[in-house]
Order: sequence, then structure tokens, then C-alpha cells
Amino acid sequence: MGEATRTVWTRKDLIGIDGLGRDELELILDTAPQFAGVSARKSGIKRVPLLQGRLVVNWFHEPSTRTRTSFELAAKRLSADTLGIAASTSSSVKGETLHDTLSNIEAMHADVIVLRHGCAGAPHILAAAHESHIVNAGDGRHEHPTQALLDAFTMREHIRRVREDPEATLDGVKVTLLGDITHSRVARSDIMCLNALGAEVTLCGPATLLPMEIERMGVRVTYDLREAVHEADVLYALRIQLERQKAGLFPSLREYIRLFRLDNESLKHAPEHALIMHPGPINRDIELAAEVADGPRSVILEQVTNGVAIRMAILHLLVNGG
Amino acid sequence: MGEATRTVWTRKDLIGIDGLGRDELELILDTAPQFAGVSARKSGIKRVPLLQGRLVVNWFHEPSTRTRTSFELAAKRLSADTLGIAASTSSSVKGETLHDTLSNIEAMHADVIVLRHGCAGAPHILAAAHESHIVNAGDGRHEHPTQALLDAFTMREHIRRVREDPEATLDGVKVTLLGDITHSRVARSDIMCLNALGAEVTLCGPATLLPMEIERMGVRVTYDLREAVHEADVLYALRIQLERQKAGLFPSLREYIRLFRLDNESLKHAPEHALIMHPGPINRDIELAAEVADGPRSVILEQVTNGVAIRMAILHLLVNGG
Amino acid sequence: MGEATRTVWTRKDLIGIDGLGRDELELILDTAPQFAGVSARKSGIKRVPLLQGRLVVNWFHEPSTRTRTSFELAAKRLSADTLGIAASTSSSVKGETLHDTLSNIEAMHADVIVLRHGCAGAPHILAAAHESHIVNAGDGRHEHPTQALLDAFTMREHIRRVREDPEATLDGVKVTLLGDITHSRVARSDIMCLNALGAEVTLCGPATLLPMEIERMGVRVTYDLREAVHEADVLYALRIQLERQKAGLFPSLREYIRLFRLDNESLKHAPEHALIMHPGPINRDIELAAEVADGPRSVILEQVTNGVAIRMAILHLLVNGG
Repeated sequence: MGEATRTVWTRKDLIGIDGLGRDELELILDTAPQFAGVSARKSGIKRVPLLQGRLVVNWFHEPSTRTRTSFELAAKRLSADTLGIAASTSSSVKGETLHDTLSNIEAMHADVIVLRHGCAGAPHILAAAHESHIVNAGDGRHEHPTQALLDAFTMREHIRRVREDPEATLDGVKVTLLGDITHSRVARSDIMCLNALGAEVTLCGPATLLPMEIERMGVRVTYDLREAVHEADVLYALRIQLERQKAGLFPSLREYIRLFRLDNESLKHAPEHALIMHPGPINRDIELAAEVADGPRSVILEQVTNGVAIRMAILHLLVNGG
Repeated sequence: MGEATRTVWTRKDLIGIDGLGRDELELILDTAPQFAGVSARKSGIKRVPLLQGRLVVNWFHEPSTRTRTSFELAAKRLSADTLGIAASTSSSVKGETLHDTLSNIEAMHADVIVLRHGCAGAPHILAAAHESHIVNAGDGRHEHPTQALLDAFTMREHIRRVREDPEATLDGVKVTLLGDITHSRVARSDIMCLNALGAEVTLCGPATLLPMEIERMGVRVTYDLREAVHEADVLYALRIQLERQKAGLFPSLREYIRLFRLDNESLKHAPEHALIMHPGPINRDIELAAEVADGPRSVILEQVTNGVAIRMAILHLLVNGG
Repeated sequence: MGEATRTVWTRKDLIGIDGLGRDELELILDTAPQFAGVSARKSGIKRVPLLQGRLVVNWFHEPSTRTRTSFELAAKRLSADTLGIAASTSSSVKGETLHDTLSNIEAMHADVIVLRHGCAGAPHILAAAHESHIVNAGDGRHEHPTQALLDAFTMREHIRRVREDPEATLDGVKVTLLGDITHSRVARSDIMCLNALGAEVTLCGPATLLPMEIERMGVRVTYDLREAVHEADVLYALRIQLERQKAGLFPSLREYIRLFRLDNESLKHAPEHALIMHPGPINRDIELAAEVADGPRSVILEQVTNGVAIRMAILHLLVNGG
């Protein structure tokens, strides 16, 4: 892409993958590598001053270690100030509306609000009504866009390394998402992100955990794990939420494991080069055998490392443009 | 006031409005404007180094977003280190006395302790026995002095702007406090602060929520909203704590709303210039109609913004004198 | 000790006192004094840059003010970044293993993990499998090594001051630990640390709270307080955990107080110079009379102050060697 046609970031918020163009998604992916080395153990660069004096507020209404920590470190490594607001000790217990709480945070000069909320659409509604930059860190079963971006980045980095082609894209890369698609905001965002970037997405899981007519999203569906892993470049296991079983959505963990678990047995049918990914936290030996999670094909911890760089890129683009 | 008679801050702590002289209150108000621009979105100044290397501890025994966050940002914008101690995860659950917990915090070289506690008098008792600077961030139904100061500052700033008189004071300004006076530490501190600064305070609310003989504090009392808003320069709605209703202190929310809510209807009887204020969090459409909270007369978010500057002024005066 | 034989710190982790040599323990004690003045109220030095750009993560699975705060301040005064992970809001509630959570934290470039956990051995298991530096901040009833080191440091500093001998050691110093030895990780670490440093340890408490065959650890045991305090240079009261009484481990608080409490009465039998110590939080008037806790022999708050310096020394040695 020449300088003349270079994409520039113009959006105030990152609410979802839905509606973003391929050029915007790639701008985020292309912005991340410069941040990948910041604060690495052997790196001389501990911080960059791109958000000096800015205030990034982590406003999480659901428990989270991974995502909250990742955003906090991303903000700090950009030299921003950070502030955490836990929903349980906050005004929300006093019945204040989200709008009013946010107006208050903004009145204290917050620049970016990282919001996780149980209600789909909450970040969208707030972003439309407020001046500060809103980043969706997961809203209900709707979207988790920063997860999708770090996933795509991890796949692309790996493919570029393996192919020794620093310009390689996800075009034609075969990605299989496994497990509970219906209840997963990660799956929704991943599907849209991977589609937009040219990858070919296959979904596999129990019929009760795959949404009706999901094929309309431009994906292939199969209920057969062997077929799902065959030819896949990436095998992405989703977290099984154990409370779904009680709701009768799958017959038993034992059956789920037998039919859909990624383990050395099921991997026999996958290409040797297939990457193993998972958004975490892992239910070891349920959706993913320990031998696979910790095996040589797993890039699960690279996903976590890349998550900080992707979130630095997003915070930087939102605040400074790019 | 000439240099010769300039007030100097000499107190170790800020425990309440009670006992402070008008000169001390005005010193705090006069110290705040220099901090109002720090960290504003368009400001070039992100921090001032007045509390560099000092440790400010937020020690909150009751839930709070607004006040806790405001103090944390005030401390950070003065370049102080901050530390939060949540009561629920602290030694208080192990039965340690407040004195012992504070002695421990001090032994780690804390400079300022910002304390919110459910017991009236807790900050006073601790301040008398300890060396560090204690700031009362709300104690039981007793006082909330920093709220009163930010309220007075917001009124004064607005009057100075409207009158185009940078020396204007609150002398003769008519302020009406509305709602549950009995259970409100904000009301108590506001009454004392506004009285000391020369304002004329009127209280209005259900008789069951107004203390007996409150007139002795030098205020006018009325149970009629129309009379209360008539001629008021400032209309200050207090938060109705919904649990009071269960205790039988007012007959029904519907009746409270009909008789005491600030809405476009009741504002018809108020002067056009009357400001709308509220300490937050708002119960929308109970004590304050949304149309009024978000209307052109509302300075509720200015209160929040000014809160950070007032708290910076207080921390600076306590630590550095002035 | 001459330069030629100077001990160098080579361990990745601090898991327990058990297994450390006297030279290593003394290296930690000898490293602490340079940090004692950092951030003291009258000190000009607010921070030292020894951990600049490093990330220290406080990962506490049990409530704590004192220890958590002490580590957080130690890290900040070494210029490290800090991150707190509360177990209740973290992935542990989603069933993630400790190993996986730690791998995730490490993937975000954490350098030091300060871990408190209810299970004895948790820090050891994690340290063996992970690259980051692990500091045990208390594991079950097993060890609390930083407490033992700050205790030994406080004793040694005091003895050096009293004897006016800057080289004085704990050799031959008589230390009596009082109370619930069985359930105390502080007692276990203290005994090993004091033994290694040459002190003579006596234990005293109800027989039901003293482990069988504890003499094998090289301590003297007595059930008689008068005998225990007689000739002691240091009297160290442990915290009585009140829930032990319900478990029938001692007959009544009244009886415990009568037989084992340190008060002016029982101190009559102790040498005049005996120091009073306690790990906190104190149950006032149960294991320690208020008159003694606040009396002239008490160095309980010095322990807290020294705790920060000792933890700075430990963090520095682990990260930078020494």
C-alpha cells in the first residue's frame, strides 16, 4: 500500500468489529508491531510517551484478570495514567445510571473508557452520547473486538514468520472455531474479523451450541470434529462455560470431551502446521487437552503477549489518530 | 485583602467545616483555581510537582466512585503516590482497630489519609491521635467538608462569571437545600460552609426529614417547594436514600415527587438564573427530573470537575501550608 | 566479612527461610539499611531507580493490608510498576489453574510475582515451573519468610543500637515466641530464621497450640509464661486467631489471657530491656495488653517500617542479584 492511499484512523471509539473495514482492521494490526517489544524482559524500552498525561479508565462490570490487566499494562506502557473502577464498589450499587457515572468520570477529565459490561450494546449506547473514547472490552454475548484483533494479529504474525513473508495476509487461511459459538462474544467478533481479513472460517460444535442460520455470516458449519480439523491452518478452541451444561445445552461433559475436545487423538487428523489457539481461561482437559494447550503448536501465550501490543495500538490510534 | 493580612493555612487536618473561619474557607477556594486547568483535555499542564514523593492513602469504608476517584486524581495530578485500601479486604475484617491500622499505614510513611467512614467522628478521633494529615471524605451523618467546599466554589465561580466580577463573594446569595436534611452529611457541611461565607440558606423537605430546631443553625425552613424555590439563586437537591421510605420517613415516592421534586413545573416559580446542583449520585426523576438534571441551569458536572481542583487545593494546603 | 568472601545472591525466588544459609539471610539483612531512609518523611530521597521499568505483581488470595501494602510501596520506591490481582475478581473464580493464571501474567512481561495463598507449597510449585521471580508472602500454615526477615532485622537493628555495636549479630540473643505456634506460618519462619542467625528460641503457649515434637526444630518449650519471659531479650506475641477457640483448641479467651497474655503484670518477670514484638494485626488485650503494645519496649511499628526496607532489599536482590 503506497503512502498516498494510507488509511488514517478517524473513529472516536472501538465498539465492535462489525462495521470496520479491512483497511481499518489492518491499520490496527500494522500499528501493533512497534509496541510488541515495549517492556519485554530483554527490551531496553520500558515505556513510550504517546499517552503521557492522558487518563485511561478501566470500568469492568464483570470479573476479568486477563483483559483488565492487559488494558492496564497497555495504558501504562503508553505512559497514560490509569484508574480502575470496580462495579461492586461503585455508584452502580447506588442505582446511578451508566450515563451519569460516565459523565462524572468524564467531568474529571478521563480520555479513554475501557468498558466491560454484561449487556450487549452498552458500549455502543455510551459512545454515542459521550465525548470520551470508548473501547469495548466485551459486552454480553455481542462483541469482544480487541480479542478478535489480537487473535488475527497472532495468526498473521505466525504465518508471516513461517512463510518468511513479512507481507503475508490472512487471505485464504483456514480457521476453525470449536465449541460454544452461540454464547460467545469472542466467536462473533472473530468470525467478522477473520472474514474481513480474507480468512475462511469453519465452525464446529454441538448443534445446540451453534446458532441457527449462522452460515449467513459467511462461515462453513460442521458437527464433525475430524472434518473440522482436516485442512485447518488454525484450530481455535472456545471456552466451554460449565453452567451451560446445567441448562441442558449439551448432554454431558464426558460426551463433549469425546466428540469435540482438541487432544493428541483428534489432532491426528489436522495438518502438522495447524496452530492451537484459545482465548483463555482454559478449562484444561475439557475443551483442550493439557498436552495440546502446552504443546508445540500452541500459541495461547503469544496471544496474551500480543494482546498488550494490540491494545496499545488501539489506545494510540483512538487518542492520537494514525 | 492585602498581603499583610493574608491568611496562612496552619491546620494539620481537614475534619469538618465546623470550626473553620471564613478566611480559611476562602483560602481554600482561592487556592483551587490554579489547579482547575491541570489535566483538562486541552491543557498543556498534566501534573504539578507539589506533592512529589508524598503518599496519599485512600481509606474508604463505604462504597464510593465519585469521591474516591476525585481524591485519587487530585493526588496524582499533584504528583503524589497513591494507595487504596478497601475496607473489605483489609485488616478491619480481622478485628484490628482503626488506630492500629492507621499506625501501620503511617509506619510505612504515609503523608495524607483520606478517610470515609460510617461512624460520625472517626476522622476527628484519628486526627487527634496521629501525625499524618487526615482528610474527612464523609463520616456517618456528620460532615462531608470537601463536598461543601466544592459546592461553594462552584457557586462562587458561577456568580463571578455571571456578574463579571472576579472578586464576587457568596454574601447574600440565596441557596435552597431540598430533600432529606436529617440524614445528610452534605447538608450539614453545606449549611455551615454557606453560612460562614455569607450566603442565606433555606431548607425544604418533608417535615419528617428535617431535624427539629434546625433553624438554630441559622437557616430558614419551609415545607412548601414553591416558596423554597422563589427568589433562590441556587437550588440544591439532595439525594433521597430510597431505604428511608421503608423506615416510614416519607409516605411514598410518588408523594415525594409530587411535593418536592425539581422539575420544569416546579422551576416555573424559581428565578430564571437559578442554578441547579446535586451532590450525586442522582436518582433520576425522583428528587430531580431528568429534564432539569440535564438542563441549561444544571452545573452538576461542573461540581464534579471542580471537586478535583478543590481537593488538590486541600491536599496542597495541608501538606505544604499556604 | 572481607570482599573476597562476600556472599552473592543467586536464587531466582524467595519461597521460604527453610534452605537458606546464614550468609544469604545476612545478605538480605545487610542490604536493607540503604533502603530504610527512602521515602521517610524527612528524607530527601523518595525513590531509587533499581527496578525501573520492571513489573511487580501482587497476587493475594487472602485478605491483607499490611503485607500487600508493604510490598506495593517497596516496589514503587524501587521505581517498579505495580499491578494488583485480587483473587475474588480474577480468573480463579472461573476455574483457571494457578499455573495458567501465572503463565498469562508472565506473558504480559511480569518480572516479580508476590504471592499469598492459602495452600502451603503453592509458591514453591509455581516457582519451580515458571521463569518470573516468586516471593512467598505467606502460604497456608507453612512459611512467611519476609515477615521473619523483617523481624530478625528489627531485632538486630535494636541490639546494634543498644549495644552501640554496628556489627552485633543475633548470636545468643534469647527470643521467646508466645501463643499459637501450631497454626502460625510466622512462627515457623521465625524459628528457622532466628535459629540460622544464632538466636536461642523459646516457645510458650497452651499445649494444644504447640506442635508435637516441635523441640526437634531446635527450640526450647515451656507452658509457663513466667519461665518464658524470664531472661528473654525479645518477647514476640503471636496473633490468636479467635476462631481457634470455637474449634476447642483452648478453653476460653479469659483463661488464655490469664495464662499467656503479655501485660505489665507478666512483664514484671522479664528483663527490663526485653523488646515487645508482634506481627500484627493485634488483638488488643487478648495476646497483648494495650499498655504493652503501646509501651516503651514495643517495637511493633518499627517492624512495619522495616518491612518495607526488607522487601525492597529482597526485590532488589532477586531482580538484580547482589
